[in-house]
Amino acid sequence: MARGMRAARSAREHNTLGQHTLVDYYGCDPRMLTRAREVKRAMCSAVRRGGGTIVKTVFHNFSPYGVSGVVVITESHVTIHTWPEHHYAAVDIFSCSDKLDHEAIRSELRRHLGAQRVRRSDFKRGFTGKA
Amino acid sequence: MARGMRAARSAREHNTLGQHTLVDYYGCDPRMLTRAREVKRAMCSAVRRGGGTIVKTVFHNFSPYGVSGVVVITESHVTIHTWPEHHYAAVDIFSCSDKLDHEAIRSELRRHLGAQRVRRSDFKRGFTGKA
Repeated sequence: MARGMRAARSAREHNTLGQHTLVDYYGCDPRMLTRAREVKRAMCSAVRRGGGTIVKTVFHNFSPYGVSGVVVITESHVTIHTWPEHHYAAVDIFSCSDKLDHEAIRSELRRHLGAQRVRRSDFKRGFTGKA
Repeated sequence: MARGMRAARSAREHNTLGQHTLVDYYGCDPRMLTRAREVKRAMCSAVRRGGGTIVKTVFHNFSPYGVSGVVVITESHVTIHTWPEHHYAAVDIFSCSDKLDHEAIRSELRRHLGAQRVRRSDFKRGFTGKA
């Protein structure tokens, strides 16, 4: 783990502490949303593509279908929840470091999941000026 | 784990699959944001207060300060990232089930963290009608 990264973050000139991206993937290939193994592989691939350093992963299947997963990274976290029956996956990407490339993670996941439509919302978290 | 919950979710009459709440806690007691043990205790207490069933927790300290943590629950996840030096914590609460009480989690965390100001944003995730 990149200990000490937290201190570096505070030195940034921006007046916010975190970046948060919510991504909705519609029209996915349901075969890519059904089993924890495939979803985990896609998530880890995407996180690495975005420059993230993986600390821990937790994925689990639901019965009869669906996967929930969290990738904890030094830069913070990426989560996914899938509904194969709706060809849909909900993802969120949070980072405390400029080093994590949210766009790379988002596009790599789109490729893996075969999503036809993507809806993204970006948020700044933690204003260090007057809140 | 409450396997089979995913199927029940699909039967809901709502046209969205997930609820997502982003919460910014400002003016927190920095002593409550500094060590993983306290942050984990606050998070687990809040999740239980909200009716969540904990599957797994991952918390880690940063040097010199700050904590990142994820609580994976059957209803989906709750995460936290703290900046004691800014008296700030970023939280997100995601659930696929109406059973999780986001408001209870939010208020219990506010109490634990001693936050003076709270900013909340609520999002519906995964529209099952036309996207």
